Amino acid sequence: MWLNGDVVPFEENARLMRCVEGIHRLALANGAHKFPLSWKVHIASYNNFPTAAGLASSAAGYACLVYTLARLYDLPLNEELTTIARQGSGSACRSLYGGFVHWQRGSSADGSDSIAVQLAPAEHWPNMHMLILVVNDARKKTGSTKGMQLGVQTSALIQHRAKEVVPQRVKDLVAAIDARDFESFAEITMKESNQLHAICLDTYPPCVYMNDVSHAIANFVHDYNETVGSVQAAYTFDAGPNACLYVLAENVPRLLAAIQLAFPNDASQSVEYLKGIPVPPVEVKNGLRDVSIGHVNAKNMLKYIIHTKIGEGPKQLSDEKSLLIDGYPLTK
Amino acid sequence: MWLNGDVVPFEENARLMRCVEGIHRLALANGAHKFPLSWKVHIASYNNFPTAAGLASSAAGYACLVYTLARLYDLPLNEELTTIARQGSGSACRSLYGGFVHWQRGSSADGSDSIAVQLAPAEHWPNMHMLILVVNDARKKTGSTKGMQLGVQTSALIQHRAKEVVPQRVKDLVAAIDARDFESFAEITMKESNQLHAICLDTYPPCVYMNDVSHAIANFVHDYNETVGSVQAAYTFDAGPNACLYVLAENVPRLLAAIQLAFPNDASQSVEYLKGIPVPPVEVKNGLRDVSIGHVNAKNMLKYIIHTKIGEGPKQLSDEKSLLIDGYPLTK
Repeated sequence: MWLNGDVVPFEENARLMRCVEGIHRLALANGAHKFPLSWKVHIASYNNFPTAAGLASSAAGYACLVYTLARLYDLPLNEELTTIARQGSGSACRSLYGGFVHWQRGSSADGSDSIAVQLAPAEHWPNMHMLILVVNDARKKTGSTKGMQLGVQTSALIQHRAKEVVPQRVKDLVAAIDARDFESFAEITMKESNQLHAICLDTYPPCVYMNDVSHAIANFVHDYNETVGSVQAAYTFDAGPNACLYVLAENVPRLLAAIQLAFPNDASQSVEYLKGIPVPPVEVKNGLRDVSIGHVNAKNMLKYIIHTKIGEGPKQLSDEKSLLIDGYPLTK
Repeated sequence: MWLNGDVVPFEENARLMRCVEGIHRLALANGAHKFPLSWKVHIASYNNFPTAAGLASSAAGYACLVYTLARLYDLPLNEELTTIARQGSGSACRSLYGGFVHWQRGSSADGSDSIAVQLAPAEHWPNMHMLILVVNDARKKTGSTKGMQLGVQTSALIQHRAKEVVPQRVKDLVAAIDARDFESFAEITMKESNQLHAICLDTYPPCVYMNDVSHAIANFVHDYNETVGSVQAAYTFDAGPNACLYVLAENVPRLLAAIQLAFPNDASQSVEYLKGIPVPPVEVKNGLRDVSIGHVNAKNMLKYIIHTKIGEGPKQLSDEKSLLIDGYPLTK
């Protein structure tokens, strides 16, 4: 296997091995017929998402790997496959589908019935966009898997959250997606993000993923919504300081302009700073200018911004897009 | 009234008025005999604790005010008096006593039976010391009263914490103080601090008091304890980024030396930086040097450090220490 052109030591990687063995078992059970299972497989993968930034690049990678191997052996994209992807990276099970996906925790103790289910395809809510604010950060990281395990063992609040808070919020969030109700979606998303990080802080020793810039972003979003008079932006933070802001496509230019004011950057207009879907510039009105400028003083707190939207999930590309020629990877 | 030499507009200050009226009521009920209640009172107060630093300087101030007025009218220092102090600043009720004090929440909805009770005098645990690390911070603050009210209204975890977590921890903490069991005291203190701030984060919009430096301090304390092989330091954070570290007197020099390495400061040896009880310098051993240096890179993250110990509560000073001469304050 080659990842971004470099050989990956396969056998030492327990997560990779679990995925490959899972596919192997499934292929055996389904009677794989396209290729003999005894054949060796060469894998070349290219991941264009920033790695180790707490932005789930490994989820994308494992979803791609499992999806591609499933295509190779003609295995159906179903719940069983999401269970295999989950063993590479928890959230990889979600990434096998496009659109809105629900990772269900299941009820069995060994997690075998924890699967991902698509709630709605991407076209259900086509104007749901995201601005990902990648934050400059130099701190030591706690891996999300280790952090969550520690949380389950030591947090005095996590069981209450799991039993009493999450189930209703999942229902409410599914209903908000179904109704394309942005305000409800936004509020649940922000509350869930905050409570996840509250649990991390209640872990012992505490597990801290958000930093001062993350909190400045959250604070900015609340003030922004108050200034525009409705909930037009929502934040969520994963196992890192970077923010994912949800915003409807029509509101992206105004929000981005306010962000540029609140988080000034020397490279603010460069293509290295503003990545993804282009955003037309807009003028920022007075009230918004005040709220934005009142926020953050220091420059260059963000590394870059990605503008993207709900994806359609993994796709099989045409043969000429292959990263392998005669079984060996193209030079980088 | 004069505070630190400046006239204080009394009537506009609802908290001050509640305290003064409370004492007035109590004096009436007790039949004050030293001075007629119709006499005007001149009050001069001097507070040497840093204000608005989230270090409970207002608690100290209100405790001093209520205690002094009680002395004036010969009122006993009892639970009723703590209820009056609490109306100036919640934690002022604790500061009426020295040593270890339990602020009981009571059971009535209007809080009238929320009182402070002394668990043990200061001499019960004379080698219990504190290092207060005052952090450089420029962010907008949320007042602790406002933050707590918002938490009660919006946090989905606070009721569970109040009902299921706090009662047992209070019992355990009281037992740890009783037994002078530093390790148990330390662990409960750190977990309680973390959970308080977890609840603040679960508040909507979230309420954030700790900053990156606060978290670096907490992280440092955990690593320090691991390196020395036992729990010798504990942190707690109040409604601000500053840390209060508990440490037994005999362990102060080593902990302080490690802090000086982990949080380098240009003024590290000055009297403006190291305040309070003097600490003899010690050499830092190799292992500790590694953990400390591995921590924080930036200089001057702390504003100053106060070394102190459990106090003995308010005291009546001799007449020549009076801040008033002929009813008017001394010049500053």
